[in-house]
Amino acid sequence: MLEDKKQESTSLEKLGEFGLIDHLTNSFTIDQKSTIKGIGDDAAVLSFDNKKTVVTTDLLIEGVHFDLSYMPLKHLGYKAVMVNLSDVYAMNAKATQITVSIAVSNRFPLEAIEELYAGIALATEKYKVDLVGGDTTSSTKGLLISITAIGEVDESSITYRKGAKVNDLLVVSGDLGGAYMGLQVLEREKEVFKVNPNSQPDLEPYSYIVERQLKPEARKDIAALLQVLGVSPTSMIDISDGLSSEILHLCKQSEVGCNLFEDKIPLDPTVISACEEFKIDSTMVALNGGEDYELLFTVDQKDFEKIKGNPNLSIIGHMTDVLEGAHLITRENTKIELTAQGWNSFTS
Amino acid sequence: MLEDKKQESTSLEKLGEFGLIDHLTNSFTIDQKSTIKGIGDDAAVLSFDNKKTVVTTDLLIEGVHFDLSYMPLKHLGYKAVMVNLSDVYAMNAKATQITVSIAVSNRFPLEAIEELYAGIALATEKYKVDLVGGDTTSSTKGLLISITAIGEVDESSITYRKGAKVNDLLVVSGDLGGAYMGLQVLEREKEVFKVNPNSQPDLEPYSYIVERQLKPEARKDIAALLQVLGVSPTSMIDISDGLSSEILHLCKQSEVGCNLFEDKIPLDPTVISACEEFKIDSTMVALNGGEDYELLFTVDQKDFEKIKGNPNLSIIGHMTDVLEGAHLITRENTKIELTAQGWNSFTS
Repeated sequence: MLEDKKQESTSLEKLGEFGLIDHLTNSFTIDQKSTIKGIGDDAAVLSFDNKKTVVTTDLLIEGVHFDLSYMPLKHLGYKAVMVNLSDVYAMNAKATQITVSIAVSNRFPLEAIEELYAGIALATEKYKVDLVGGDTTSSTKGLLISITAIGEVDESSITYRKGAKVNDLLVVSGDLGGAYMGLQVLEREKEVFKVNPNSQPDLEPYSYIVERQLKPEARKDIAALLQVLGVSPTSMIDISDGLSSEILHLCKQSEVGCNLFEDKIPLDPTVISACEEFKIDSTMVALNGGEDYELLFTVDQKDFEKIKGNPNLSIIGHMTDVLEGAHLITRENTKIELTAQGWNSFTS
Repeated sequence: MLEDKKQESTSLEKLGEFGLIDHLTNSFTIDQKSTIKGIGDDAAVLSFDNKKTVVTTDLLIEGVHFDLSYMPLKHLGYKAVMVNLSDVYAMNAKATQITVSIAVSNRFPLEAIEELYAGIALATEKYKVDLVGGDTTSSTKGLLISITAIGEVDESSITYRKGAKVNDLLVVSGDLGGAYMGLQVLEREKEVFKVNPNSQPDLEPYSYIVERQLKPEARKDIAALLQVLGVSPTSMIDISDGLSSEILHLCKQSEVGCNLFEDKIPLDPTVISACEEFKIDSTMVALNGGEDYELLFTVDQKDFEKIKGNPNLSIIGHMTDVLEGAHLITRENTKIELTAQGWNSFTS
C-alpha cells in the first residue's frame, strides 16, 4: 500500500520531532469538558470531579500485531484506538481521552504517517475522545503504536471482571469469529498476490469479515443500551483474545464456573460460510479467534426478560459453582473443558 | 551486560504473555489512595476527587534512546520512569501512577526483563507511584518501553509553560550538562572496549556525570521546596532536550523574550573538567546537551530574596519583551541569539 503513495513523499527528517507532532495533531479538536489542557505542555490536564478515572494502555507492533501488506495505515490508526477504547468500555465507563505514541523508521514518508493519523482522527471524532498527548520518535525498524486511553465512570457503575455470581447469565454483544476469519482471507490473498502480483482479489463476498479484521468498532453503545434496559452487569470484559480465554478470566476473578452453550454462540452467516470454505470449525474460531472487540458480561438471572431477544445481545451460558469448572456444552450435549488458546504474542 | 547473565536464562515463550505480566508485576504494591484498582482488569480505576489529573507519556527505543552496551537494564527501567515523572513534576503536580508497556525480542531472557522491572520497581518505591497497568509483548527487534505517568494537582497550583511574564526571573534546579558529558565518557569507553575487550575502564573520576546519564533523578522535591519558600512559579518545563530548547518553549508559549546569562549557568566541577578533557565548550553542553531532567521555571521578581542563595536553585536570567527575542549574554557581554539544537531523534 505504501509503494502506491511514493509519488509524493516528504521525509520525516525535514520536519523534526516537534514539527512532526505539531503537524500531525493541529487539526484535532477537543470535545470533552474534562479536557482542560490537551497537547502542548509537559503533560495534559484533565478534570474528572466526582467521577472515577479509568486508564488502559496497549502496544501494537508491526510484524507482531499487524501486517502492513494488507492493513492500510488509516485502518491501522483507527483499529489501534478501538483496541484501547474497548478496554474502557469493558469497565462500563465512558472513554474521554487518549494519548498516542508512535515510533517510525525512516522508510515511512510523512504522507504515510498522515494516513495513520487520519485513521486516529476518524476514531476520535466518531467516538468523541480527545487526543491529549503523545510522543513521536524514530525507530530502527518498523512501525509501533502505543496508545493509552482514559475514561470516566460513576463509582456505582464500574464493572470489574470479578463480580459474576453463580447462576448469573453470560451475555455477549454482536457476533464472534469474524475478525479471525477476515484475517484468514487476507492472509490467503497475500499468498496469492506473492505468486501472481497481477491478481485482483474479489473480497466482496468477505466484506463483513474483512471489515471486522481491518476496521473493528468498539462497543461504546452497550453501556447506554444496558442503562436503557435497566440492567446492571455484574462483571464485564472485552473479547480481544477469544471467547474462551475471556470466559476463563471472568471465572477466575469471580471465583465461579461456567457452562457455555455451543448452539448459543452468535455467528454471522459470512463467518459460517468462510469456516466451511477454509475447513475450520466455527466454534473453535469463536472460542479462540480473538480481535472481535465485543463485550462479554454477566447479568443477574432476573434480567433474563430484559436481555432476551435483543438483537445486540446473545445469552450464551450461565455461571456455575467454581467447583464445576468452565465447560462448553456442545450441540451433541457433551461437556468439554474450556481452555485458553487465545493469542499469545510470544509463541506465535 | 546481557551476556554476563546468560548462565541462568528462562525463555519468554515458556511464560507466555499473561504469565509474564503476572510474574513481573506481582511484587509491586499500591501506595496511593487515589489507586482504587491497579493491574488485573481491563483498565485501572483511579480517584482524584477535587484534584485535577495530569497525564504524560514517553517512548524509549533501543538504538535510538538508549544503548544496552553500556546502559544496565535496571538503570534503564529506572530512567524510563524518571523521564515521565519529570514531565508530571514540570506541571508542579504530584506523580501518582504509571503504566508500563514493553516490547522485547526473544533474544532477551526472562532474567533480563526482571532486571528492567527491578529498576522500575525501585523508581516506583522511591517516588511513591503505583504501577497500575501496562502491556507486555514481543518485538521483532530490540527493546522498547512506553510509559504513561499520571499525577494530581490542585487547580490553583498547575503550572503551564505559558505563564511567564516580562521581568520574571528564570530559575533552574540543580546543575546542567552532566548527563551529556556522562554519555560522552560512556561512548568513549565503548570504543576503547571494542578495540581492547580486556580494558578495565576507571570511571571513578566521572562517577557524577555517568550517574547523571545512567540514573537521573526527577525533581520531585522542587514543588515542595517552592511551597516552603512561599514561591508560586509562573511557568515551568523540565529540561529533557537542553536548556536552550526549553527556554524557547517557555518564551514561545508565554509570548516573552529572555536574557540568559552564561556566567549564571550552574555547572558541576566534574562537568567543567570533562568538557576540558573532551575539548567541548561547557556552555554549549548545558545549552544543548539535554537529559538532565532538571526543572526550569520562572518566578515573579519580588521572589528574588526567597530564591537567592538556595543551593538547589540558580537564577540564570530574566524574561523580556517578546520583541527583544531570546538571547545568551556571554561572559564577554556579547549577545547571542538562542537557537534550539536539542536532541532530535529523526536527525541523529
